[in-house]
Amino acid sequence: MPRLRVALAQTNPTVGDLAGNSALVREWTRRAVAAGCHLVVFPEMMLTGYPPEDLVFREAFVAANQAALHQLATDLAADGCGGCAVVVGYLDADGPARVSADAAPHRGPRDALAVLYGGQIPATYFKHHLPNYGVFDEDRYFVPGDVLTVVRLGGVDVALTVCEDIWQAGGPFAVAGHANVGLVISINGSPYELNKDDMRLPLVRRRAAEAGATVAYVNMVGGQDELVFDGDSMVVAEDGTLLARGPQFEETLLVTDLDLPTAAGGPDGDLGEMSVRRVHLSDAVPEPTGSVRPVFAEQPTDEAEVWRALVTGTRDYVRKNGFRSVVLALSGGIDSAVTAVIAVDAIGPQNVVAVSMPSRYSSEHSKDDAAELAKRTGLDYRAEPIQDMVDAFLTNLSLSGLAVENLQARIRGVILMALSNQEGHLVLATGNKTEYAVGYSTLYGDSVGGYAPVKDVPKTLLQRLAQWRNHDAVARGETPPIPENTIAKPPSAELRPGQLDTDSLPPYEVLDPILAGYVDHDLGHEQLIAAGHDAALVEQVIRMVDTAEYKRRQTAPGPKISYKAFGRDRRLPITNRFRERT
Amino acid sequence: MPRLRVALAQTNPTVGDLAGNSALVREWTRRAVAAGCHLVVFPEMMLTGYPPEDLVFREAFVAANQAALHQLATDLAADGCGGCAVVVGYLDADGPARVSADAAPHRGPRDALAVLYGGQIPATYFKHHLPNYGVFDEDRYFVPGDVLTVVRLGGVDVALTVCEDIWQAGGPFAVAGHANVGLVISINGSPYELNKDDMRLPLVRRRAAEAGATVAYVNMVGGQDELVFDGDSMVVAEDGTLLARGPQFEETLLVTDLDLPTAAGGPDGDLGEMSVRRVHLSDAVPEPTGSVRPVFAEQPTDEAEVWRALVTGTRDYVRKNGFRSVVLALSGGIDSAVTAVIAVDAIGPQNVVAVSMPSRYSSEHSKDDAAELAKRTGLDYRAEPIQDMVDAFLTNLSLSGLAVENLQARIRGVILMALSNQEGHLVLATGNKTEYAVGYSTLYGDSVGGYAPVKDVPKTLLQRLAQWRNHDAVARGETPPIPENTIAKPPSAELRPGQLDTDSLPPYEVLDPILAGYVDHDLGHEQLIAAGHDAALVEQVIRMVDTAEYKRRQTAPGPKISYKAFGRDRRLPITNRFRERT
Repeated sequence: MPRLRVALAQTNPTVGDLAGNSALVREWTRRAVAAGCHLVVFPEMMLTGYPPEDLVFREAFVAANQAALHQLATDLAADGCGGCAVVVGYLDADGPARVSADAAPHRGPRDALAVLYGGQIPATYFKHHLPNYGVFDEDRYFVPGDVLTVVRLGGVDVALTVCEDIWQAGGPFAVAGHANVGLVISINGSPYELNKDDMRLPLVRRRAAEAGATVAYVNMVGGQDELVFDGDSMVVAEDGTLLARGPQFEETLLVTDLDLPTAAGGPDGDLGEMSVRRVHLSDAVPEPTGSVRPVFAEQPTDEAEVWRALVTGTRDYVRKNGFRSVVLALSGGIDSAVTAVIAVDAIGPQNVVAVSMPSRYSSEHSKDDAAELAKRTGLDYRAEPIQDMVDAFLTNLSLSGLAVENLQARIRGVILMALSNQEGHLVLATGNKTEYAVGYSTLYGDSVGGYAPVKDVPKTLLQRLAQWRNHDAVARGETPPIPENTIAKPPSAELRPGQLDTDSLPPYEVLDPILAGYVDHDLGHEQLIAAGHDAALVEQVIRMVDTAEYKRRQTAPGPKISYKAFGRDRRLPITNRFRERT
Repeated sequence: MPRLRVALAQTNPTVGDLAGNSALVREWTRRAVAAGCHLVVFPEMMLTGYPPEDLVFREAFVAANQAALHQLATDLAADGCGGCAVVVGYLDADGPARVSADAAPHRGPRDALAVLYGGQIPATYFKHHLPNYGVFDEDRYFVPGDVLTVVRLGGVDVALTVCEDIWQAGGPFAVAGHANVGLVISINGSPYELNKDDMRLPLVRRRAAEAGATVAYVNMVGGQDELVFDGDSMVVAEDGTLLARGPQFEETLLVTDLDLPTAAGGPDGDLGEMSVRRVHLSDAVPEPTGSVRPVFAEQPTDEAEVWRALVTGTRDYVRKNGFRSVVLALSGGIDSAVTAVIAVDAIGPQNVVAVSMPSRYSSEHSKDDAAELAKRTGLDYRAEPIQDMVDAFLTNLSLSGLAVENLQARIRGVILMALSNQEGHLVLATGNKTEYAVGYSTLYGDSVGGYAPVKDVPKTLLQRLAQWRNHDAVARGETPPIPENTIAKPPSAELRPGQLDTDSLPPYEVLDPILAGYVDHDLGHEQLIAAGHDAALVEQVIRMVDTAEYKRRQTAPGPKISYKAFGRDRRLPITNRFRERT
C-alpha cells in the first residue's frame, strides 16, 4: 500500500489580493515540502479569495488571476517544490459573463481547482454543484463542471472536488466511487455557523462511504465581510474513522501519513451526469521519512467557538481593510462591553478607543462600569459628555419624545464619526441581533459603524458570551474584563429617565426564541403559536421585525454565526404589505 | 377567422398585499368585461407583487397567496366575469424551500401563471426560464417549469409564458411554434432601464416570428424598492406588425381586437426540453360588438422617460410604505433641487418639506436659490441654520479639515432625522449616481434618508433632467420650477470656503463616461484607456469607486434607471484588495 504524506493548508486568503494569496501558497508549500509532504491542498478560490462576488464579471480580474496561477506554478518549481503536487482553488477564465443578444448573461467563469506539479498545471477540475441559497449566489457567477478529474499520484488515484460537491449525495463522490479512487480531495470555502462543525464530520463520513475512499477536507480560515471561515479541516477514512482534524479559526498545516490502495484503474468515460478524466502524475513517491503524529484538535464549547468567530471576523475586517485601530461607544451596558472586549482580543487594547458619551439620563453606575472595563482591559478610554450638543439642537428645534431620544443616539454617532475622520479609526457598531431584528436601535445613531461585531448575536447568547469570557479569564488566571455589574444589571438604553428595555420589549429570554423561529427559520404566526409562544406577543414581534427592514438595509456588515444572519442571507423587500395578522 | 377581444391590464400591484392585488384584478377585469373582452391578462406575480424575494420561503405567505388565488376565481365569477378568461401571475405552492439532509435547500415554489375561468382554475403554467443575473435571484426561489400550457379559447389556441421566457430563443416560444398556436401570452415583471423600451419591440418581434403567432406582452407599472416597472405593454403580429402599445408608467387597460387563426391542433407531447399540455376552454366566443381603435402610445424623450421613472419610484415608495409626506435638505444646488421637484411631482408640494440648513460656508446665492425654488413650487420651506450646533461640537472636540466638513453634513442629517421623527416625514436623500460611485458624500450626512430618488442618475444626466423639466414646464405654460442659477452655477458642496466639486473630482462630463464604463459595464483599466480616457484619471476614478463600496452598502434604496444600478444589481465585496494599478 503506497503511503502519501498529505498536508491540508488551512490558510487565510484575502479577496482580490492575488499577489498576497500566491505568496501564502508558496510559504505554506515550502513548509509542507520541508515536512516531506507529497501533496499539499489549499482551500477553494485560494488564489482570488472567496467569495469574489461580482469581481468575476471583470475581465481584468479573471485574466490577472489566470496569470497569477501560471506564475505560481513556475514560482513553486523555482522554490524547489516542483516535486510536490499542490492543489489550489482559482477562478477559471471561461470568458467573463456577457449579455447575449437576448439579454441573459451566460455565466462564464468556473469555480475551479488546479493541480500545480513540476512547474506545470497538469490537471484542473470545475466545481459541479453550485450553491445558490443562503449567502451564496453561485448560479450568478459560474458554469458547473461535468467532468470528475482523477490524478494518479504515487500510484494512488486521487479524485478532486470543490466545496458544495461534498454536500450533495449522488454527485462527484458517487462518481469517484465508480471510478474506484483511493482518496478524494475536497477544497472548501465553508462559512462558519454555530454547530456547523458538528454537521461536518458526519457529512464527510457519508461522502467517504459513498466514494469508498479516504476524504481529505480542507477549509479556509478568516473573515470576509459578513462571513467567517472556521477551518475545521479533517481527514476521514472510508470506514468513517477520523484520521486527523485541525483547529478552528487558526492557520495551520494539517499533515497526515495516509496508507492508500494502489490504483486499480476503473471504468472511465461517462458515468451518469459526469464523465471521468484521468491524469497521470507519478506511479511512486519516495517513502516519507519517519511518521507524523496525527493532530486531533479539541472541539471548543459553543461560547468559545462563537467568541473566536467574532474575534476573527473583527480582526480580519480591520486588518484586510487597512485599519490599525477602532473606536466605539462604551455605555456601561453589556453590548458595548462585549464588543469592546472582542475588539481588544482582536487587535489589542492599545488599538481600541472607547468613548463614554453620557447624557443627563446616563446613570452613575453606567459611567463607572464603562471606566471599570477600561481599567481592566487597558483600552484607550475617553469621556465626551453630549449635553451641550443636545441642548444646541433642542434650542433650535422643537423636539419631544422619541425624537429627543434618537437625537442623543445620533449625536453620539456624529462624535464617533468625527473621531474616525480625525484619527483614522474604524467605527464599531455595538448592536446585537435581537436589536437589529426588532429595530430597537437608532438609525444613524447607535447603528453607525463600519463593522458590527455582535450583529448576529442574540441578546441572550451575548449575555452567555460575557459570562463565558469572564470565566475563561479567571480560568487562565487573568482579570475578568467585563464588570460584574454590567452583566447583572437590567438592560437599558438610558435615553429617558429610568428607561428599561423591558418597557418596549418582551424579556429577552422570551423574545429570542420567537425571533429564532421567525427570522432564522421563516416560521409563521401559526407555527410560532404551535411552538408554545403567546399569540399577541408573536404578532407584536413579527410586526416589529417586518417594519424594521428599512433600518437593517443601512447597517454595517457583521460576522455571520447563525443559520440565518441579516444581510445576504435574508433578502426581504422593504416595501412589503404582507401581514399574517392585522 | 375567430376574433378575440383581448385586454392587457397594465396594473400596479404591491408586494405582499394579497387582498389589495386581488381587488385590483377584480376591478380591472370588470372594466375589461364591460368593454366586451374575452380575455384579460395581468402581469407576472400580480397576486403577490414582484419580486417577493425571501417571502417565498415563508409557508404562511405561499399558502395565503394560494388561498387568495382560489378566492379570486370565485369572486370573479360572482362579479359576473366568469365568462372572461383571466390570466394572472401568482406563486404556486410546490412546498416552500427546505433544507435537505445534505444542506442545499431544494427550491420549492414556482413563478406561476393561472387561467381563471368560470369560477375555476382550468390551467396553470410555470415559468421555464429563471433569470439569476443583474437584480434577479430566481434560481434562489423557483423550480423551472417544463410544460408549455396551451388553452383553446374561442377556437383559438393560446400559449402561456412568463417574463424571462421571452428573452430566450429556442424556449417556450419555439415550442409554441411547434404546437401551432395562434396567440402567445407573455406576462411580465420587467424592470425599467433607460432605453429598454427600445429593445422590447424588436425582442417581441423576434419571438412572434419564432412562434409564428401574435404575441400579447403585458408588463406591470409602479415602484418596488430599487425597481421601477414601466409597463410598455404591446401586441405584435406574427409578421412583426405592432398592433397596439400602451403608455409607460401608467395603469391602463390596453384593449385590442385580434383576428386569429382557428385552432388547427398540432403535435403534442414532448418537444425537446418541454412538453405541451392542452386545455379546452371554448370553441367559440360571442362576436365582439363594434370594434376598438388600437392605442399606440407615443415614445417619450429619454429625459421625459427617466423623469417619469423617478417620479413613479418615489411616489410608490412613499405611498406603499404608508408615508404621506417627505422631508429633504434644500441646498440651492442642482441635486437637491431636482430631488425636490421629483417629490413635488410625485406627491404634491403640500407634502414636501424642504429645509435649508446654511452653515457659515453657505453662499448667499445658495440660500436665495433654495428659497426661489420653494417659491416657484409652493413646497413647505424652512430654514434651520446649523452654526450653533456646529460650534457646540467644535468647542467639545478638537476637529480639523475633513472632520469639520463632514460634521456639517452630519448635523444636517441629524436635523432631517429629528424632523422625520417629530413629524413623520420620510427623509429623501439627494445624492446622485456619480457621487455614490466615487464616494463624494458624507456617510450619515447627506446620505441619510429612506429613499434616494436620483441615486442611479449620473450628474450629467441630472443636469439634462433639470433643463428638460424647466423647458417642459414652459412648454405647458407653467413656471419652470428650478432657478436658472441653480442649473448654471458650478457645483459645490459648500463645506469649506470657496469649495468646488472640481477641487476633488474631474469635470463631470469627463468623469461620467469613465464611470459608465467601469461601473455599468465592468470595463478594466486597459479597456477604459483604449476607449480614450486619460490613464492617470482612470486609475484615480477606479480607486475612488473601489474604496467607496463600504459607504454604498449603507445607503437608502433608489430607483434603478440604468443598465447597472448600485444595490442588488452590483454585488462587490467591501474587503477587496484587487487593484489593477497600484
